[in-house]
Amino acid sequence: MAKALRIRGAGGPEVLHIEDFEPPSAAAGEVQVEIAACGLNRADVLQRRGFYPAPKGTVADIPGLEFAGTVSALGQASTRWKLGDKVMGICAGGGMATHIAVPEGTLLPVPRCLDLIEAAAVPEVYLTAFDALQQGGMYEAGAAKTVLVHAVGSGVGVAAVQLIQRAGGVAIGTSRTQDKLDRARELGLAHSILVEDKRFAVGVKELRAQGVDIILDFIGAAYLAENLQALATCGRLVVIGLLGGVSAELSLGLLLAKRASIIGTVLRSRSTEEKVALTKSFSESIMPDLESGILVPVTDRVFDMKDVAQAHEYMESNQSFGKIVMRW
Amino acid sequence: MAKALRIRGAGGPEVLHIEDFEPPSAAAGEVQVEIAACGLNRADVLQRRGFYPAPKGTVADIPGLEFAGTVSALGQASTRWKLGDKVMGICAGGGMATHIAVPEGTLLPVPRCLDLIEAAAVPEVYLTAFDALQQGGMYEAGAAKTVLVHAVGSGVGVAAVQLIQRAGGVAIGTSRTQDKLDRARELGLAHSILVEDKRFAVGVKELRAQGVDIILDFIGAAYLAENLQALATCGRLVVIGLLGGVSAELSLGLLLAKRASIIGTVLRSRSTEEKVALTKSFSESIMPDLESGILVPVTDRVFDMKDVAQAHEYMESNQSFGKIVMRW
Repeated sequence: MAKALRIRGAGGPEVLHIEDFEPPSAAAGEVQVEIAACGLNRADVLQRRGFYPAPKGTVADIPGLEFAGTVSALGQASTRWKLGDKVMGICAGGGMATHIAVPEGTLLPVPRCLDLIEAAAVPEVYLTAFDALQQGGMYEAGAAKTVLVHAVGSGVGVAAVQLIQRAGGVAIGTSRTQDKLDRARELGLAHSILVEDKRFAVGVKELRAQGVDIILDFIGAAYLAENLQALATCGRLVVIGLLGGVSAELSLGLLLAKRASIIGTVLRSRSTEEKVALTKSFSESIMPDLESGILVPVTDRVFDMKDVAQAHEYMESNQSFGKIVMRW
Repeated sequence: MAKALRIRGAGGPEVLHIEDFEPPSAAAGEVQVEIAACGLNRADVLQRRGFYPAPKGTVADIPGLEFAGTVSALGQASTRWKLGDKVMGICAGGGMATHIAVPEGTLLPVPRCLDLIEAAAVPEVYLTAFDALQQGGMYEAGAAKTVLVHAVGSGVGVAAVQLIQRAGGVAIGTSRTQDKLDRARELGLAHSILVEDKRFAVGVKELRAQGVDIILDFIGAAYLAENLQALATCGRLVVIGLLGGVSAELSLGLLLAKRASIIGTVLRSRSTEEKVALTKSFSESIMPDLESGILVPVTDRVFDMKDVAQAHEYMESNQSFGKIVMRW
């Protein structure tokens, strides 16, 4: 029988329940995937707590923003995949189930060198990091970019460090944990800054007097002022998350003086067309390096789905480095 | 004898003095221009008051950010222009003089249908509006853009309305003065909003429920929250001026939800290379429409340089619509 993880109410991990469910069938242009594993994300924890409802048109009570599995049914006019293909992808919800139906253009082939459990650690973090770096100007013509990556031990942080190194850029990472910085150094992080009392701009300037070209930020309000200090002329601050608050004083004077930009971004609420476009661009730019094993996803721990409460607790303890993956 | 307008101290128009000066000679790659007329800008008023010092490497006490005149000397290896050519351009200061020396790549030819007084109203406002619209995404592929232009009666505002219409976009303009809105309508403004008590977002939503794609803002802090409200998904707020304050609370939550961007920009402090690149891009995209008379600069009043104090007072009275020009 098909199963899904349901959020019943809002609160601690006790609101999560594995239940039987009717697998969604593939509509025209869609593909049904039998899911082997699913990456756990901060967004799942926020959704469980009631702070991050699913966008309209998405299943409201099954979390899960990514998955890897096997094509199990084809909708009408779905021609890109065949039954049994191993695929992975992002979704706006519903990834924490044994089955999902998604537009065929949002799927990626599982790299040959990865099994489905390893592949479940790929879509969300690499697509997010790639998209954010792209918006930050990483892949535009010009000199190699220096990028400040906050929470560098997070799944997206680790993926970003790999992509920056691969693109010929220089990654500076921050963390509140020395051990995570040390591990990120082994993955290609050029410089590390241990954040104490939310300060890091002085550390950045010591490493690069003119500041950094791009910042990938998951913290938001608590880091806004220091982020602006740490940016170089024409630098871009890409805000991906708001773990440190949603509202803060902005020095427009400094923004203009530096001719800097602040870019807010989320993947989840994007239209299918936008997700297909991103998947295509990722396919062309990054998939070859995943196929060849140059980029290797970093998974911290794999939990069985029945232990999902433990997995949430582990994520909330901030001990993980890289991805947490749930398997059926 | 060559003359220059000098700022002696900081304060009211009484600190402005016309004095004899030694005309700057053209260095290698530069051209000396004998200036006929110079547009007056808000920046000149701010500099007079002591709030907007010239960037390093620029004459500190002669204001003036644009000019039109005649090539009067060529520096070594300056090959683009010949003596007597009628030219116009932007500069980081020193435009309020009878002579200036500037890099040859920052000059534009005066359109045949304009005299030098009319041409002095062109460089700053059209380059600023073009550059800001470009940063806002106006000229990228995709659907026609809807643009909110604040202070639509200002020089840059009027130029922006013309450029937006010419690019097939829809311009919505704001002003605190009904008469300026009426005049802007005659120039191609599609919709107008009279701003009272710094509110305009509701008015924007009434005109376009999803909000606008681009905002050109000269106000800064006082308009930040309403600007974010008025933006569409993936909209871009381009902040060009800070007449309404330099610091304000930013809702990062809304910025992310809308996947919006805030872009700070200034022309004055840019490097010569950047100014040359902008001049070239403007030359290709906009100059043909100035040459053919499709775009006509809007000059409110022309003052003799000896009446510069009056001109500053007139600008500070906020009565002008379009440009104020100073002639020698």
